[in-house]
Amino acid sequence: MSGVYIALVHHPVRDRTGAIVTTAVTNLDVHDIARSARTFGLAGYFVVTPISAQRALVERILDHWHHGEGKERVPSRGVALDLCKPVHDIESACAVIEAREGARPTMVATAAAPPATIPVRSFAEEGDRMKAATRPTLLLFGTGHGLAPSVLADADAILAPIRGGHYNHLSVRGAVAIILDRLFGETGAPSPPTRP
Amino acid sequence: MSGVYIALVHHPVRDRTGAIVTTAVTNLDVHDIARSARTFGLAGYFVVTPISAQRALVERILDHWHHGEGKERVPSRGVALDLCKPVHDIESACAVIEAREGARPTMVATAAAPPATIPVRSFAEEGDRMKAATRPTLLLFGTGHGLAPSVLADADAILAPIRGGHYNHLSVRGAVAIILDRLFGETGAPSPPTRP
Repeated sequence: MSGVYIALVHHPVRDRTGAIVTTAVTNLDVHDIARSARTFGLAGYFVVTPISAQRALVERILDHWHHGEGKERVPSRGVALDLCKPVHDIESACAVIEAREGARPTMVATAAAPPATIPVRSFAEEGDRMKAATRPTLLLFGTGHGLAPSVLADADAILAPIRGGHYNHLSVRGAVAIILDRLFGETGAPSPPTRP
Repeated sequence: MSGVYIALVHHPVRDRTGAIVTTAVTNLDVHDIARSARTFGLAGYFVVTPISAQRALVERILDHWHHGEGKERVPSRGVALDLCKPVHDIESACAVIEAREGARPTMVATAAAPPATIPVRSFAEEGDRMKAATRPTLLLFGTGHGLAPSVLADADAILAPIRGGHYNHLSVRGAVAIILDRLFGETGAPSPPTRP
């Protein structure tokens, strides 16, 4: 059985004009996505940013909850944040996964509005594939206005967008929660969580 | 057809010791839950706090995105925040709904760990009930460590908790996103959203 990992990508992503930018790390993204990842049994959560000061910020957040006063006040938070690791780029996340699992991950991208030229995969189909997979999976989420076209083009698959019927601007925190629930529901992901 | 509303309750809620407290409003809760509520076609989103300075803070956030520079930068955000209204207590939310819909709402509470003495209702069952209901529904979410026992006892129903299989500490933002998706999925809630 192979692990499912998630990456929150701050570069390369689009801004509202479509330009490729680097977004800033949001403190609550670190917490919320770690909590969702732990809830559904993911094997690791990468915060991807090329800015070393931003990776240091993530390390300070993790340290507060692992060793600082946060640990004493809310011990369950450290259990979620154990999954989190800041890395320079998507390739670095792949390298960590490969070192741990002995195989490069299948890359599955997400998009609120996938390009019409790339076929999307349903949640049921992709959830079943992951559960049967012998290779690990890396689920990619973009901040800002979504993953750069180059990331989508390089992915092995793109998940179908969430359509609530009324509006297409969920927060990335909300989208991650919904997508992990649709993929893994009440039982969780295939592999037990361990530290990246 | 009747509307489905959501309330994010800051009082009365439990802290980690079980004491009844009033929590502080979190800026991202206002945004994220408004975006999730709009995505799934809810009719209104109440931020419930007895502290007038906190309600004024919510009004300032709304004003920034409706009239301030936020409106110009991200117009879609105002479309979501249109749903949001700060109110003093749960009863005030009920009164707003009754004034608009001509009937008091059915109260549906949520809990990560419901008391064993109260039977819970499945997402499928509750989603079907809402779609067929002639009265509006108010979905209640607690901040802190969850809704006070008095709120759970007064509710008409309690939804089954989300069990990801591994951990029971989702953020309220993540829990709202997942629960609205489970109830209304790809099609959205029964009634078109209008301003509360």
